[in-house]
Amino acid sequence: MKDINDRSITEAVLASMSETSNARLKAVMTSLVSHLHDFAREIQLSEEEWFAAIEFLTSVGQISDDRRQEFVLLSDTLGLSMLVTSQNNHKPAGCTEPTLLGPFYVAEPPTFHNGADIANGALGTPCFVSGTVSGPNGQRISEALIDVWQSDEDGFYDVQRPAPDGLIVPQARGRLETLADGSFHFKSILAEAYPIPHDGPVGKMLAALGRHPWRPAHLHFWIRAEGFDPLITHIFRAGDKYIDSDAVFGVRSSLIVDWKHHDPGVTPDGSVSQTSFYTVAYDFVLSESDKATESLSASVSAAG
Amino acid sequence: MKDINDRSITEAVLASMSETSNARLKAVMTSLVSHLHDFAREIQLSEEEWFAAIEFLTSVGQISDDRRQEFVLLSDTLGLSMLVTSQNNHKPAGCTEPTLLGPFYVAEPPTFHNGADIANGALGTPCFVSGTVSGPNGQRISEALIDVWQSDEDGFYDVQRPAPDGLIVPQARGRLETLADGSFHFKSILAEAYPIPHDGPVGKMLAALGRHPWRPAHLHFWIRAEGFDPLITHIFRAGDKYIDSDAVFGVRSSLIVDWKHHDPGVTPDGSVSQTSFYTVAYDFVLSESDKATESLSASVSAAG
Repeated sequence: MKDINDRSITEAVLASMSETSNARLKAVMTSLVSHLHDFAREIQLSEEEWFAAIEFLTSVGQISDDRRQEFVLLSDTLGLSMLVTSQNNHKPAGCTEPTLLGPFYVAEPPTFHNGADIANGALGTPCFVSGTVSGPNGQRISEALIDVWQSDEDGFYDVQRPAPDGLIVPQARGRLETLADGSFHFKSILAEAYPIPHDGPVGKMLAALGRHPWRPAHLHFWIRAEGFDPLITHIFRAGDKYIDSDAVFGVRSSLIVDWKHHDPGVTPDGSVSQTSFYTVAYDFVLSESDKATESLSASVSAAG
Repeated sequence: MKDINDRSITEAVLASMSETSNARLKAVMTSLVSHLHDFAREIQLSEEEWFAAIEFLTSVGQISDDRRQEFVLLSDTLGLSMLVTSQNNHKPAGCTEPTLLGPFYVAEPPTFHNGADIANGALGTPCFVSGTVSGPNGQRISEALIDVWQSDEDGFYDVQRPAPDGLIVPQARGRLETLADGSFHFKSILAEAYPIPHDGPVGKMLAALGRHPWRPAHLHFWIRAEGFDPLITHIFRAGDKYIDSDAVFGVRSSLIVDWKHHDPGVTPDGSVSQTSFYTVAYDFVLSESDKATESLSASVSAAG
């Protein structure tokens, strides 16, 4: 490998990996190294730019902790997360489309009965959410597990709130089960547009690129049921200012829903609200699974 | 941008950057995003693999600090550093070839007079280093600044040694100036092959790829002189076991030198050594600069 130059270096690196017994790893790294080198040559990356990239990536890692995952944000804002989600979740026609997980999911959220108020004190306009979970042939699915999570009216998820003693109080997140008829309903708060965390290196990158950090208002769902593919998705609020410029490219037309405004009065749970409130409904359709593919679920639980 | 899929996402991301006023940043990011997406599609990156990559990159950032730069190691072991070095340092024929900086350079090293022992207690077989610095027409260059650094016989640089009170004692590193005739000479220790730090994520990657972490024995030089391009390079020991499989792809034939073994006796500085010792000599040729390009020097000083 002596006397390698800026062309032959690629062959030298690929040759160095020829001994690995992991064929998939070899294929992934071969593609990665080839594209990484092509990029550096194509753009004639300078030494100053290389060093700036090293510093940037280091800071992305260093700002990440149990509660903040800046590399997920970087992947999201560069469209990689949505690309990976798309290519791994081709759904049959009629099934609900998936979108990205995002960095704010927390494994094993608090469980609730249908009808409960999952906001648990999170600030926001009351919102009553309902819907159904079905299979592709219309069959209703009971005992489907539904994890939901969302930000509050200030645009923060519970895990972004200060936790002086290290304990995060779960707010506006929870797990429910569909009833015998495949339906679910709960109370939460109105989803609002919010900027992704932009006080770190990814925020600086977006600013340098002339991009805003906002996401249109949405409510996250992760639905699991025996015999069906897990569905990770959101529903979005129609009319949101950012519906056509989501900072993480997650919007799909089929996931945009009217959040209906209601004046003070009787709510879906039969109580009387002194303030105005919202309702939203969505019917989810799961695809049938060939095999049990819950490994992502297991691995993502480490994401915090 | 609604309804983007795993193909159209690339156009959507590029469109989102259309407002940036920084043309170079736009060009770099356009190439980066295109290659990143092509890579993910080409290899059909799975969600599990995406998540493993997020975890890997995060850990590379998190293990990095003032004394360890794991992203530089990652760049080095994937051949990116040597590629960037090569394409930014095309030297005229006859000029000394550059190689990569590596992660162990420290800005503002201790200064020494010619003839000094820069080892400063570092463990190793004594080695007397000498040479000259010239321009491309053979003109000797006086007052050239020469930064040298190397590992000790255990394969560790001073910055890798424990520093209980936070203070690192500089060993086997220093700065000299060439004399009026362009020559320099100093005493240090014999360069030995060593493994790059492999107790972190990059070490795990190398192991998974069936690669060893060793670098052939070498001595680092960074030479600067008014009116000439800075030269960052190494000299390598001929015959080293790893001379054809450097973990970071830095070897060039023109930089391989005989380190001469000497039995106990009179050394180049006129003293009598009771132990055997080595000598090595190298004549460096700098290229003339069109412009002052010391910006890398300034930026790299932050690398620690």
